[in-house]
Amino acid sequence: MPKVEIHPQGVFVEVEQGTLVSEALAKAGIQILLPCGGQGRCGRCKVVVEKGDVRRRSISRLSPTELEQGYALACQTLIESDVVVFVPPQEELIKHKLPSEKAVAERITLPFPCDWQSNPFVRAFYLDIEPPSLADNTTDFERLKRELTRQYNVTELIADLPVLRNLAQTLRKADWKVTAILEMHNWARKGPPRLIDVRPGDVTDRIFGVAVDIGTTSNVVYLVDLSTAQVVDTAAEYNKQISCGEDIISRIVYAKRPGGLEHLQRLVIQTINELIEQLCQRNGIEPEDIYFMTAAGNTTMIHLFLGLWPEPIRLEPYIPTVRHPLPVKASELGLRINPEATVDCLPSVGSYVGADITAGVLSSRTFETEKLTLFMDIGTNGEMVLGNFDWLISCACSAGPAFEGSGVKSGMRATVGAIEEVWINGNTYEPTYRTIGDAPPEGLCGSGIISLLAEMFITGVMDKGGRINRSLNTPRVRVGDHGPEYVVAWKEETRHKEEDIVITEVDISNLLRAKAAIYAGFRTLARAVGVQIADVEQVLIGGAFGKYLNIEKAIQIGLLPDMPWDRFKFLGNTSALGAYISLVCPEMREKVVEIAEKMTYLELSADNTFTEEFTSALFFPHTDIEAFPSVKKILEGRGVR
Amino acid sequence: MPKVEIHPQGVFVEVEQGTLVSEALAKAGIQILLPCGGQGRCGRCKVVVEKGDVRRRSISRLSPTELEQGYALACQTLIESDVVVFVPPQEELIKHKLPSEKAVAERITLPFPCDWQSNPFVRAFYLDIEPPSLADNTTDFERLKRELTRQYNVTELIADLPVLRNLAQTLRKADWKVTAILEMHNWARKGPPRLIDVRPGDVTDRIFGVAVDIGTTSNVVYLVDLSTAQVVDTAAEYNKQISCGEDIISRIVYAKRPGGLEHLQRLVIQTINELIEQLCQRNGIEPEDIYFMTAAGNTTMIHLFLGLWPEPIRLEPYIPTVRHPLPVKASELGLRINPEATVDCLPSVGSYVGADITAGVLSSRTFETEKLTLFMDIGTNGEMVLGNFDWLISCACSAGPAFEGSGVKSGMRATVGAIEEVWINGNTYEPTYRTIGDAPPEGLCGSGIISLLAEMFITGVMDKGGRINRSLNTPRVRVGDHGPEYVVAWKEETRHKEEDIVITEVDISNLLRAKAAIYAGFRTLARAVGVQIADVEQVLIGGAFGKYLNIEKAIQIGLLPDMPWDRFKFLGNTSALGAYISLVCPEMREKVVEIAEKMTYLELSADNTFTEEFTSALFFPHTDIEAFPSVKKILEGRGVR
Repeated sequence: MPKVEIHPQGVFVEVEQGTLVSEALAKAGIQILLPCGGQGRCGRCKVVVEKGDVRRRSISRLSPTELEQGYALACQTLIESDVVVFVPPQEELIKHKLPSEKAVAERITLPFPCDWQSNPFVRAFYLDIEPPSLADNTTDFERLKRELTRQYNVTELIADLPVLRNLAQTLRKADWKVTAILEMHNWARKGPPRLIDVRPGDVTDRIFGVAVDIGTTSNVVYLVDLSTAQVVDTAAEYNKQISCGEDIISRIVYAKRPGGLEHLQRLVIQTINELIEQLCQRNGIEPEDIYFMTAAGNTTMIHLFLGLWPEPIRLEPYIPTVRHPLPVKASELGLRINPEATVDCLPSVGSYVGADITAGVLSSRTFETEKLTLFMDIGTNGEMVLGNFDWLISCACSAGPAFEGSGVKSGMRATVGAIEEVWINGNTYEPTYRTIGDAPPEGLCGSGIISLLAEMFITGVMDKGGRINRSLNTPRVRVGDHGPEYVVAWKEETRHKEEDIVITEVDISNLLRAKAAIYAGFRTLARAVGVQIADVEQVLIGGAFGKYLNIEKAIQIGLLPDMPWDRFKFLGNTSALGAYISLVCPEMREKVVEIAEKMTYLELSADNTFTEEFTSALFFPHTDIEAFPSVKKILEGRGVR
Repeated sequence: MPKVEIHPQGVFVEVEQGTLVSEALAKAGIQILLPCGGQGRCGRCKVVVEKGDVRRRSISRLSPTELEQGYALACQTLIESDVVVFVPPQEELIKHKLPSEKAVAERITLPFPCDWQSNPFVRAFYLDIEPPSLADNTTDFERLKRELTRQYNVTELIADLPVLRNLAQTLRKADWKVTAILEMHNWARKGPPRLIDVRPGDVTDRIFGVAVDIGTTSNVVYLVDLSTAQVVDTAAEYNKQISCGEDIISRIVYAKRPGGLEHLQRLVIQTINELIEQLCQRNGIEPEDIYFMTAAGNTTMIHLFLGLWPEPIRLEPYIPTVRHPLPVKASELGLRINPEATVDCLPSVGSYVGADITAGVLSSRTFETEKLTLFMDIGTNGEMVLGNFDWLISCACSAGPAFEGSGVKSGMRATVGAIEEVWINGNTYEPTYRTIGDAPPEGLCGSGIISLLAEMFITGVMDKGGRINRSLNTPRVRVGDHGPEYVVAWKEETRHKEEDIVITEVDISNLLRAKAAIYAGFRTLARAVGVQIADVEQVLIGGAFGKYLNIEKAIQIGLLPDMPWDRFKFLGNTSALGAYISLVCPEMREKVVEIAEKMTYLELSADNTFTEEFTSALFFPHTDIEAFPSVKKILEGRGVR
């Protein structure tokens, strides 16, 4: 069997001939990033084969220079003899803290009044129970139930084994003075209230819940005091699944490996557990004090969270296993909160309009407004909903993660060092830029890319078809390994001083397709219900993407429709907010089911209108310039046709 | 740390000073029987300390000769220095097969008509499902549900994660032709039908259930074909918990040790799993084909089966954790049947009138008869119920396991070599006897003991107070280490040729108390409702004990009331039969709940009548000889006063 020597770790491992380098590294316990899930598409798992024979199944993401230097994609390269492999330092994405959510926490409140007190999901009751005697030898469980009836008029009660197993000892040790924590109702299981915990003494004020948004990129947890319905604190972290693929398609591909699905499930559970632990430590509570969890997320994320087989989501005709999974117990998923706590995933509409969107329609109040509303959540995927209190129609555009910096040569996530805004001088074509944290630049994040594209278009560095004008008199425009490109920052300015930060025509073409897909989505939805985009009275933008988006620039490239800026509202994490509302407000938990059932889902891949709209949108800002009057005006002002 | 050398195994082990010999043996992986749970009461865990210093905390069960020979009770002896311990061969109780139940299986049928087909607990539906398309992109789960509605009018359905996790792949591999197995209803969880399995193809005729009787001594499993409601086969085996204590009190004591409860639970689950495996292999089915289990057993056995803390059952005022535990999933208990199968324990009345008795009242039809009926189940404990269709009153006598051969010097269980019947010559006082399997005798089982006592009493070897007549001219009567005794078999006749088989006055005194407790139970129940024992129109005897009981002899010693023999009926395992009825007949599953709720429980330890009746019954057959006219006649015939 071939021996593999791995540097700089200095590890040896033996593998079968024909093993992938990525598998050999995994066997040696060395984690490398596989953003596209091992499909050879992203080119991020580059390693250097220093000695020995390998066979490269794909070299599409490698430049001739890299090939010469021995570079290979770990996920596409088969080991054929003893080899020596060098693993370059991996991006430290996972260790990177997300921008603090603590500041946000202070103003997270229910967006509408809710009578949560009259009928909460979880309630704590203090009981001072008469001890048993020969004359009154009712069982422990029935005695507790009898007291609940007497004092609080709770007449029915069930309890599962884990609670019953501790009951006899807890009652006696606590001298029959205990707090009973009850799940009062459960949307799916129906039936009577369920005893989920019995604690010694009076701890009726120590019941908590968590609302979780399981994003493809980042996971967010809100810690909620169930005795006041207030958000106490929040925490966010990158989803550890990123190491197995950056977008949902890559994750689904990864899930097909032996043990892949279980691994992905473990990673997301681990991410959430760590966030919960953080919140517990910071707020002086025990994980066992958390008695309820709601979760929102796209359909794939919910499938992976529950360990459901995701593959049919990826393959036509795109079928999830289930739209609205039954609540499960925390212990079944390995979540470290009270093991008897219910974990309730919000319902989705289909494979590509998930619980994050139904939660968003809830928290954005799209479901109850009289205004014609366009709700959108452009995250790793692009989903949108058009409608009002009366009707809702939704679709999903496979925009891909281009606007999150993925699939773009110098792309990166919105962390410190990312270029988030660019201005180009219309005469010299020299750019100036701003980076997150004012650090030396490392790459371009989503908002930086939009800004750059808008500037390049407006200044004529690139034409409406996305082609770079190579006749300009500037060293910024040149032909690189991947064709024509524009240099945003010279390598000397960058943090690592190794490579220029550029945008290539290939990147632009990817981005053009992504923005076209999104805008075509708007138009297709509007046409499906016979309205005009211009009729839309408000555009509500949820998701992390919205936070940094410059509306003006987004309109200039034709990503957002051209309308007065005051019609746009950024709502932040509408998915987490929807999960929070569903955690405390049973009425709204029912509402989200109604939303999911009522919402029409338009499958774009089966829609001719979309193809037509997509083609029309493959220009900056659009074939139909009349739809973008503000942009037309600028172009006319600058003499661009 | 002291070293322990163990013979004949030739094993060495190091332990802390002060460790019990039983613990040292456990550490060395040597299993010894602790029938009384390590309380030093039964004297069955004798070992020989060949070398070294030990401290004997109790020597009450050791004769002076034994002490001289170095004998010690493993559960009561502390190691103080390096020691050499000899472990005598352990009784091979566990390996012993119980009398085959196969013969019984052929005639196990429902004791009354039941319309099980119209509303079974579990049902299998064959479905030929339309595959999804872009135009019909309903989820897998909803598609299956839709088909169930279309073809079978099943409109509601829920499914837990383990089933959903396999759904997508099963449907596609089976080309959308599957059998859906549904739990149609569940007495406690209410709610809609639950999908418990999806199998490729049409396997609607492969759904099975098991009805289990969890006895303190033996466990019995009936395999039931749920598509016909027939018992297919049965199997029985000693409860592996026996190694931790023979009676329920010993087991409860054992459960208090660190890990004791978990160990006991594992043992009974293991016993049942092995029985199920046996049944599966014998009948060519897979454990996964078993979709439902019902279980009956006394309250302690059900607590140990579920892992509930049993201690308060043993301590005044004798309180169980729960009377009617919720159904649980097989996977929660580690039972090797379909992991999603429901395991449903029948309800009990109290700590000492358990689900075995409610099951017995059901299967014996005591609950619906117009005759005044005494139902009794004398197993390791003695429970009895008096009543009819209108009312039921029950009590439990702590008779102890004396009539199962425990606590009697030469006692043993009813296995091969046990003396099961004895006759004594009224002139020579020489006995003759019959053993199970006609093997050389090894000891006395329950029926043998009753037979022996009756003969000793009738022939005057023992008086009505249980004192042996030492003036008789026979070597059979003598004074041994434990006082006066009667020799039933000389050691030369026995299998091991080591010890005479005797009954001592101490044994007789134990047995007298046990029979007095049972008879006093009858009388106390009767007095409580104002009837006479003589008014009882039928005596229904359940449990293994009944199978071998000689009514005549049992009346002669005053264990059973003196009435025409045709009023006694032996019903066999009424507990297992009740579990079987509850498995196939939802109507009867509800009936057993009614029975448990309706039955009055008389706590004898709080009852003065009982104490009085007990004292009166401490004679053979009774202080009130008029209550035993048939015995009076014999005694008069033989000139005994």
